[in-house]
Amino acid sequence: MGAWPGLIRAYHDYLDVPDEHVVTLHEGNTPLIPVPGVAERVGRAVKVYVKFDGMNPTGSFKDRGMTMAISKAKQDGSKAVICASTGNTSAAAAAYATRAGMKCYVLIPDGKIALGKLSQAMMHGATVLQVHGNFDDALKLVIKISREHPVTLVNSINPHRIQGQKTVAFEVIEQLGGKAPDYHFLPVGNAGNITAHWMGYTEWHKLGRVESRPKMMGFQAAGAAPIVLGHPVEHPETIATAIRIGNPASWKQAEAARDESGGTIDMVTDEEIIAAYQHLAGREGVFCEPASAASVAGLFKYADKLGLSGGETIVCTLTGHGLKDPDRAIAVSPQPTKVQATEEAVLAAMELTE
Amino acid sequence: MGAWPGLIRAYHDYLDVPDEHVVTLHEGNTPLIPVPGVAERVGRAVKVYVKFDGMNPTGSFKDRGMTMAISKAKQDGSKAVICASTGNTSAAAAAYATRAGMKCYVLIPDGKIALGKLSQAMMHGATVLQVHGNFDDALKLVIKISREHPVTLVNSINPHRIQGQKTVAFEVIEQLGGKAPDYHFLPVGNAGNITAHWMGYTEWHKLGRVESRPKMMGFQAAGAAPIVLGHPVEHPETIATAIRIGNPASWKQAEAARDESGGTIDMVTDEEIIAAYQHLAGREGVFCEPASAASVAGLFKYADKLGLSGGETIVCTLTGHGLKDPDRAIAVSPQPTKVQATEEAVLAAMELTE
Repeated sequence: MGAWPGLIRAYHDYLDVPDEHVVTLHEGNTPLIPVPGVAERVGRAVKVYVKFDGMNPTGSFKDRGMTMAISKAKQDGSKAVICASTGNTSAAAAAYATRAGMKCYVLIPDGKIALGKLSQAMMHGATVLQVHGNFDDALKLVIKISREHPVTLVNSINPHRIQGQKTVAFEVIEQLGGKAPDYHFLPVGNAGNITAHWMGYTEWHKLGRVESRPKMMGFQAAGAAPIVLGHPVEHPETIATAIRIGNPASWKQAEAARDESGGTIDMVTDEEIIAAYQHLAGREGVFCEPASAASVAGLFKYADKLGLSGGETIVCTLTGHGLKDPDRAIAVSPQPTKVQATEEAVLAAMELTE
Repeated sequence: MGAWPGLIRAYHDYLDVPDEHVVTLHEGNTPLIPVPGVAERVGRAVKVYVKFDGMNPTGSFKDRGMTMAISKAKQDGSKAVICASTGNTSAAAAAYATRAGMKCYVLIPDGKIALGKLSQAMMHGATVLQVHGNFDDALKLVIKISREHPVTLVNSINPHRIQGQKTVAFEVIEQLGGKAPDYHFLPVGNAGNITAHWMGYTEWHKLGRVESRPKMMGFQAAGAAPIVLGHPVEHPETIATAIRIGNPASWKQAEAARDESGGTIDMVTDEEIIAAYQHLAGREGVFCEPASAASVAGLFKYADKLGLSGGETIVCTLTGHGLKDPDRAIAVSPQPTKVQATEEAVLAAMELTE
């Protein structure tokens, strides 16, 4: 096999970017990893996989959309980009913008930004502005500024973002040997990703590249569940900072994906999210960020409600890597034991029983 | 294309593990990313790529060796594994061990463990023992304990580790279209990785799968450079914690790789490492951990000493992801600016000049 060229070049028939304008960090091509412990808990001989999109270059699925958004901005001659972000978007925007030789401005809400994400925007040379307000305040500002000034908006309302993100569905179909899963679970925050997944499945279904499409099962955090509640949430609260959003940009499209697929958008509590997060790391060996685990938490919640006949294939998207939020991991785990550097001390702490 | 099956199954002709014992997180298959800004600084029309091994599942190259070590331990019926680690090995050992249903004990040296790495071992359910001593003290302890108790040593002196790690050379050859680079730069800490790279290149060269082998260019941190100095360093000190090792386990093999390839093992200062780290993130969009940047720092140092004739192909291995050590990234970057959530305040902070 040759080198994976990044998703725009890999799927050039489905993404409209001239080769000379492609800005890539060779994103995409993320692994589809079986999670037998999850499957066992669901029962009924289901096959469950995680699509670990945290294994993109900046550690989240945002790279899929950002390679498109920045390539298009480059094609259009843009010299600067701007976004509002709870962290992952800013990391991706900063990385791709600097690779393209563009300036990047990121507006982050006050407080509760995961450490890893903040470090990325800073290292990639973005101008990071921490605004005294929440994500939705920051989003309103960047929309207005991008309309009035020569700076390209790269939030998920940038239409190119969704085009790049749809490739996750292409990859899942290929990784399953040309089939779609029966169910696709994923976290819902700003709702661009569920929209994009459905767009990808639908595009290949229309072209006859796949026979069926999955039911789309989206999960919001209980403290930030505007779509479930049917109204915006003014002060969203959840430990899953990546989906702490009160008024999703792609609200209507997410509802359409749910309805067209015969799926569901529901919510899971922070406790359910943390339990799934710990199961994935502690049993399957897969360390995702807390928000990502909303997908698996949703599967655990719905296992008995799906009416499974047995043997179904289920995919859960994990949107970000656990290294994005090391503080949370440390907070929910047992702390290291300090011992003297002697064999006796170490053996005692190991509690080895032979 | 189908799903990447992890490196043991992808390279099963070169790795001796029966399929039923394979423990995998679908590691390997990491991207080879052009770094045009590095190439420009080197000049002479060279092509420079980074092999971004930080894009393995636990965020470092250690996954390559650990899929082998844990699979072999499983084949042998082992129920527990142990390692000493400055962080990356413990993260990989904990992830693969828990996936295999094994217990994992990790001994980490006192202090200076990067936050991300520590969070991983903890989340993956390892028993983490912080010993009052340095890496070399911890290594001596785990070697002794593994000899006397039913627990498998998975440090890089475990011979299976190097076997897994050699696949990085196979991937580079394939990604370059069947050719080896002219030079391969990489960081040197415990020296297992330079040994493994050379083993991989040599194995395929002997089989006729590639016509040439690269000169191996290894770089230690100046405060932890035992191979360069010719004697162990009792108190190694460097900001590049992943290579803060005073008495490398694979010392002799590293010297053999250097001598057989006609390469060099030298050192770079912490300042040179940080400069390369910032260049990679700030210009190329690639965020690696500090130790990884020793490879590119070495290339910058040697650019004028290599006697390049022009057009050479150079690969630099980046061993770990920048998210492994967010504190370091934040420490070396400009801090975010706090602003009110008004258009006027944001525009002023952006310093937009039209």
